[in-house]
Amino acid sequence: MIDWKNNLRVVMISTRNPLNIGAAARAIANFGFARLRVVNPYDVAFREARSAVGAAPLLRRAEEFGSVAEAVADCRLVVGATSGGGRRFQHPLRRLEYGARLIKRALVQAPVALLFGSEKFGLGNDDLSHCQWLMRIPTVDPGLSMNLGQAVALCLYEMARDPKAVAVRPGKIKPASAAQAEQITAMLLEALGRSGYVNPLTAASTGEKVRRLVRRLNVAAKDAPVLMGMLRQILWKLGD
Amino acid sequence: MIDWKNNLRVVMISTRNPLNIGAAARAIANFGFARLRVVNPYDVAFREARSAVGAAPLLRRAEEFGSVAEAVADCRLVVGATSGGGRRFQHPLRRLEYGARLIKRALVQAPVALLFGSEKFGLGNDDLSHCQWLMRIPTVDPGLSMNLGQAVALCLYEMARDPKAVAVRPGKIKPASAAQAEQITAMLLEALGRSGYVNPLTAASTGEKVRRLVRRLNVAAKDAPVLMGMLRQILWKLGD
Repeated sequence: MIDWKNNLRVVMISTRNPLNIGAAARAIANFGFARLRVVNPYDVAFREARSAVGAAPLLRRAEEFGSVAEAVADCRLVVGATSGGGRRFQHPLRRLEYGARLIKRALVQAPVALLFGSEKFGLGNDDLSHCQWLMRIPTVDPGLSMNLGQAVALCLYEMARDPKAVAVRPGKIKPASAAQAEQITAMLLEALGRSGYVNPLTAASTGEKVRRLVRRLNVAAKDAPVLMGMLRQILWKLGD
Repeated sequence: MIDWKNNLRVVMISTRNPLNIGAAARAIANFGFARLRVVNPYDVAFREARSAVGAAPLLRRAEEFGSVAEAVADCRLVVGATSGGGRRFQHPLRRLEYGARLIKRALVQAPVALLFGSEKFGLGNDDLSHCQWLMRIPTVDPGLSMNLGQAVALCLYEMARDPKAVAVRPGKIKPASAAQAEQITAMLLEALGRSGYVNPLTAASTGEKVRRLVRRLNVAAKDAPVLMGMLRQILWKLGD
């Protein structure tokens, strides 16, 4: 299998703040993609963007172009990213969840360009004319634009995310055994008895209450000996 | 139904750069959440953060606390966000895809706090001791930390995203009818004939080739009259 992630070109057009190019580079590295292209950045010294912690090599390898046509020339699919909806688009608009799936499928075959416009104006009409369709980040208010670095991160995350991971339960805590829970119950009851907490007339029902309480605590296996050590020390101090 | 989104508290601890608090506020607004809490921000003037375009009211309403304990006091579930894996955690670690589902379920019942540590150090041991479990953003290299504003946006997006939207196909283009495609084919063939492109001996096979080519173009219904207008003009200029 070819590495589909290597086929994606993130294309940033007329970006004003170099920190946003840095943030995009960082997201590209975070999610295992590799290629960044910039078209007419506002600040030509964008390669020094500081927010690119750990993404400096990627930023150095970024390719610079004078036009969108050149930046997307080797791509078989060109998609524009938008959080908008305010303007009437000439293009089909696909939600990120579905659009990312289409892009992933296309990436297996050939290079795909994903275009991001400037912070202030988004993609212009000329940029849009290069796009086959648009991908919309599903924000609640289309009038409230997204932070550019966040928009890049969201698009890449949706492509990198693993739908199967929704159902897995990694890192589940191993619970204490019933025997351990019972030991803790007994020690706690003993401590309560020695402290005068337990009324001899209702001792039996107190025992049941404490047992149920300890079961509800859902003590982890590794915490059981710690709790028993605490109780042992308290019992020692309480004496007979 | 109560508004589950209103139950989420995004808690930012010891954030150094006020722009990151602004970016978080913007993401909270973008995805329809409402509440931001800050604990000991480095820059007490964080409410002026400029990157919060459109999120100024939310930033003004942000609550400030002196300790994590106070910031999470009203919550029934406290989760720490991390992109790491470098340290050995005492907590169960859940991937964002699964963790977000658990948080959504909890939000329907009661307030939930989602904790984000500082840009440099992430969540400290004291912060972690308030968490029931940790949620990990699935980056490829756990050693390469995420941009804080992007991390907040990703967690909120995963909660707001609509799993059903993966399969829908909004904005599909209505294709031209077969009759329109045939009209275009006929006009194009006529133009090719008048231009001397068509060899009379192979005219039949050329006709078939052009017909197949036009079908592969997948002309949209609304583009068909435009194309026919272009061809009509060319035919007029070509004359008989």
